[in-house]
Amino acid sequence: MSLLDALRWRYATKKMNGKVVPQEKVDQILEAARLAPTASGLQPYQVIVVTNPDVKQSLLPHANNQSQVIDSSHLLIFAAWDNYTAERIKGVFEHSNKERGLSSDGTAAFEQMLINLYAPKTAEENFQHAARQAYIGFGMAIAQAALLQVDATPMEGFNGPEVDKVLNLKAKGLKSVAFLPLGYRDENGDWLVNLKKVRRPAEDFFIEFK
Amino acid sequence: MSLLDALRWRYATKKMNGKVVPQEKVDQILEAARLAPTASGLQPYQVIVVTNPDVKQSLLPHANNQSQVIDSSHLLIFAAWDNYTAERIKGVFEHSNKERGLSSDGTAAFEQMLINLYAPKTAEENFQHAARQAYIGFGMAIAQAALLQVDATPMEGFNGPEVDKVLNLKAKGLKSVAFLPLGYRDENGDWLVNLKKVRRPAEDFFIEFK
Repeated sequence: MSLLDALRWRYATKKMNGKVVPQEKVDQILEAARLAPTASGLQPYQVIVVTNPDVKQSLLPHANNQSQVIDSSHLLIFAAWDNYTAERIKGVFEHSNKERGLSSDGTAAFEQMLINLYAPKTAEENFQHAARQAYIGFGMAIAQAALLQVDATPMEGFNGPEVDKVLNLKAKGLKSVAFLPLGYRDENGDWLVNLKKVRRPAEDFFIEFK
Repeated sequence: MSLLDALRWRYATKKMNGKVVPQEKVDQILEAARLAPTASGLQPYQVIVVTNPDVKQSLLPHANNQSQVIDSSHLLIFAAWDNYTAERIKGVFEHSNKERGLSSDGTAAFEQMLINLYAPKTAEENFQHAARQAYIGFGMAIAQAALLQVDATPMEGFNGPEVDKVLNLKAKGLKSVAFLPLGYRDENGDWLVNLKKVRRPAEDFFIEFK
């Protein structure tokens, strides 16, 4: 299936049937997020994978009791860095230099440039930037799920600070930004499943400078 | 090619060779962005497609003279709504109700809920939210380009207000958030092409609640 056909097939599933997504498919969906590009390759977010029913149940009231939280098989939660720090930036380059067999001298100037770029900004500004990067990976996971015919519901309707408490994210320097429950549609219980997918027409969405 | 293989193939191309990407491929890349999901389906952004050499040249100094701006065949610029307004929200539903053959009564309560959700927030908060949505489409365009073996460079290193002036975006209520030049790699001139792709290891990137 082409990506375009997969995107036409998918929709924001409102009711899932509880069937379990095979781990092999979940792994491909997670891998798409992990491979997604981010600014300067920093990957300033993590993906939380919740299968524990008690944890899902604890999250439910903080997500407006949307049933996909518990009827999904795997609940992915994208959580962005609460700030860029020198330690985090250095950690990323330490890893990539090791993987590439490079000395740290080669990237020291670039690392320092990045540290100098983010340091004067507020934590909130840096978090907003990190959140955008998370949304690239969020998009990749949505794409990969659709290609595998796994239903997924992009969700922002939750109380971030309460979710962060349940998952103990503050201690990790993370803030939840988006949910992506994975599962299978319950065709009989889903009011959205048969509605035509509508997007803004091309002439309203693209602007050409020819 | 699978999406995962495409994501492994792609990289942030630093030097492009000026070859033109066929329009049919560009159209598929744009369509992936147009089909991308967004919060409440509002699609609070537009994609600007620049092929005009003079416009590219005018943008170049505002993008740190990064050569992909002019060596790309099509320069995509993602620009988010500067705010959510009742008019914009109503416009989206007017279109989708028409496409779905529904009366406006059916969505009036939801529309009003959305208007009430965004109205008390600052323009900056709403813009940040819109920008995140743009990044989902940005991700989809990156994915589709890679699947078509078209090189693309996700770029944030530009002066947004100056770019907005060149493209007259303020009058349209838009702010540029990301560049995606499309083209083909110049293998001899690109320092990044042969470096190993590195991502944070799975154990640092995923957190499981089993």
